[in-house]
Amino acid sequence: MNVEVVTIGDELLLGFTVDTNAAHLARELAAAGIGIVRRSTCGDAPDQIAAAVKEALDRTGAVITTGGLGPTSDDLTKPSIAAIFGRAMKFDDAIWEELKIRWKSYKWPGGIPESNKTQAMIPEGAVILKNRHGSAPGIWLEDDRGRWVAMLPGVPREMRGMLADELLPRVRARATGTPVVVASLTLRTIGIGESALADLLGPLAKGPPGLPLAYLPSVEGTDLRLTTRNSSSDVALEKLRAGAAQLRAVIGEFVYGEEKTDLAAVVLDLLRSRGMKIAVAESCTGGLLGARLTAIAGSSDVVVGGVIAYANEVKESKLGVRSETLRDFGAVSEETAREMAAGVCERFGVAVGAAITGIAGPGGGTPEKPVGTVCIAISAAGAIKSTKVQMIGDRDEIRRRSAQAALNLVRRALASS
Amino acid sequence: MNVEVVTIGDELLLGFTVDTNAAHLARELAAAGIGIVRRSTCGDAPDQIAAAVKEALDRTGAVITTGGLGPTSDDLTKPSIAAIFGRAMKFDDAIWEELKIRWKSYKWPGGIPESNKTQAMIPEGAVILKNRHGSAPGIWLEDDRGRWVAMLPGVPREMRGMLADELLPRVRARATGTPVVVASLTLRTIGIGESALADLLGPLAKGPPGLPLAYLPSVEGTDLRLTTRNSSSDVALEKLRAGAAQLRAVIGEFVYGEEKTDLAAVVLDLLRSRGMKIAVAESCTGGLLGARLTAIAGSSDVVVGGVIAYANEVKESKLGVRSETLRDFGAVSEETAREMAAGVCERFGVAVGAAITGIAGPGGGTPEKPVGTVCIAISAAGAIKSTKVQMIGDRDEIRRRSAQAALNLVRRALASS
Repeated sequence: MNVEVVTIGDELLLGFTVDTNAAHLARELAAAGIGIVRRSTCGDAPDQIAAAVKEALDRTGAVITTGGLGPTSDDLTKPSIAAIFGRAMKFDDAIWEELKIRWKSYKWPGGIPESNKTQAMIPEGAVILKNRHGSAPGIWLEDDRGRWVAMLPGVPREMRGMLADELLPRVRARATGTPVVVASLTLRTIGIGESALADLLGPLAKGPPGLPLAYLPSVEGTDLRLTTRNSSSDVALEKLRAGAAQLRAVIGEFVYGEEKTDLAAVVLDLLRSRGMKIAVAESCTGGLLGARLTAIAGSSDVVVGGVIAYANEVKESKLGVRSETLRDFGAVSEETAREMAAGVCERFGVAVGAAITGIAGPGGGTPEKPVGTVCIAISAAGAIKSTKVQMIGDRDEIRRRSAQAALNLVRRALASS
Repeated sequence: MNVEVVTIGDELLLGFTVDTNAAHLARELAAAGIGIVRRSTCGDAPDQIAAAVKEALDRTGAVITTGGLGPTSDDLTKPSIAAIFGRAMKFDDAIWEELKIRWKSYKWPGGIPESNKTQAMIPEGAVILKNRHGSAPGIWLEDDRGRWVAMLPGVPREMRGMLADELLPRVRARATGTPVVVASLTLRTIGIGESALADLLGPLAKGPPGLPLAYLPSVEGTDLRLTTRNSSSDVALEKLRAGAAQLRAVIGEFVYGEEKTDLAAVVLDLLRSRGMKIAVAESCTGGLLGARLTAIAGSSDVVVGGVIAYANEVKESKLGVRSETLRDFGAVSEETAREMAAGVCERFGVAVGAAITGIAGPGGGTPEKPVGTVCIAISAAGAIKSTKVQMIGDRDEIRRRSAQAALNLVRRALASS
């Protein structure tokens, strides 16, 4: 079974909002064995909506729309699509009663405004998809040939809830035959680029036979995603496992996890298994490394905290970096990073300290230390390792790459200890 | 002049990747007075690419594609689109020479692999769009009726660079007549929800006449966006300015900036103008507030650093929170937050201290202090203000909302000082 998705809204079409609904819908449908063959976005104009939905319906016979149903929207989607099906709009008393109850719970002075009555208008013969996460209900409209359009709201939280509660069960019930499952497995790598990975993989660079390989570089490293289609869930998983093992045999040292594994979680697990605690000492990242570690639920058993040492006097007074070190080597140096790491270990009484100092830019670079120069030091059980890296990207990327690189250095220090 | 955008890739269609290219393209084109009337996404299959591009070309006559040109892609886009135009593919020596030079700079053993030769294949009669940001060049293909397709790579950095360097100048030169400019102005609010804003605005809730208003809630607050079309740039700006003034007259106290203004930058400017420095004391946010402040270039003149006090013993030893306070009121209390704020001011020798302590979840909640309970305190020039807030959302949202709320408290404390 195949569907098309039409996302509606000037905000999307004009690029003010990134369309996260489309990606969520696609993942949920693919996991249920329902294929998406096309996705379209059109603006908030009745003729645009009607054209995009009609073309999709003519191609595929099954269409999901998002947007244009909410309280502050102009509510264009329902009448535009009703017209495709040759249906009139009618006022639905039950929806209106529910809206009134909802507004009563808001304790709104004067109750629900009359202008909200458009929210209670639905096409004749429509089935209502309940919205437990907001006020605008969804709509299911179908013709006598079994062609259908499902209309969901555009607010991501409401759309996701309604998809799970109301639409997926309905679409699954329609799907006949063996579902075509699209399954994937991702290996997360760090410390090596896309081209170098492809070269190392050689004959496997485009994936093992029948398992196309995608390269997804980001500030967190390069993800490698294997995808398979046209298998049942069990067979797909087996194929993916075997394919991943082939890749790992070649590039295993760069792989830190699978799927959505966070490198910070890998580091926390390594610390936990060794009974070690960690503290951070951050200059150019200004708290980003601490934020990465504490973003993981349950991190409090191994993360005690740290010092954001943005100013040099804080590096001296709160971390014990010597003024001679700052004077002779500069704040951005492996020497300073090493003293920051050692200092935070000593002052916070922990086994592991991670320190970052660098030039995030856009200003502050010199010929010897250009923007992107970052020094990282890890003190683990008394042994200090440090490195100087040249990061690419803008200020934000340099900072995020620096935090990720520091996590990887902790991982490597602990893995070899 | 109108164009359509077709983004190509299984990764996009299956929802593994959120399509940020489409939003970027739309914004850049709209700002240049070129309208996007439809956006489509299709998978990495020649028939899907050919169908989506041909339909778009038949509707609009001007199509921009992204994706399917890179070194590890299967390079399906060029031949599929060449076929629509009835053109054969040919090997381009100049592209191949450039690729060889690029690979030489990589110092790759053995030089460029033969498999990269598909990157040098282009449709007959194509114009090459240079790629200064990566290896795969873009393609401009046009028929004798003036209908054209421009193919850009899918890697966002490369796509953005090529759009600015090569494509926009070319498309602008084509656009005839007065460009229809879509212009917008955003007011950023915090401390009030979408419905309450609409209610306060009353007759302005859907925007002043001719200026539709969009409500965009996020963890940073609720943005209000006014949009206007069909005016020249000057007139559009004047209309938007007047509309924004009407809104500000009603909801001004909640507005902290316009367009993409970062609340952290507003706070830094307030500190700078008062000659004050700030330090942070963070528990549940674990460095996020420090990261927000230091994300702004030039923050080092007012941000000295701070303490990530994730463990209670760090709150005591590094910030001077009294053990009685922790015992009697708990780590998540306004009392603890106030001592953290006062402590960081004293120990870091700054005028302003911002402290956050809370329960980010998913565990750790109690009936009295459920997940999302966050206490924030600001010490400014010796006066301490504090608040206890119930944040909604998951761990990540609670932490991000907490950092934003702390910034807003600093803003309010400084604005009234």
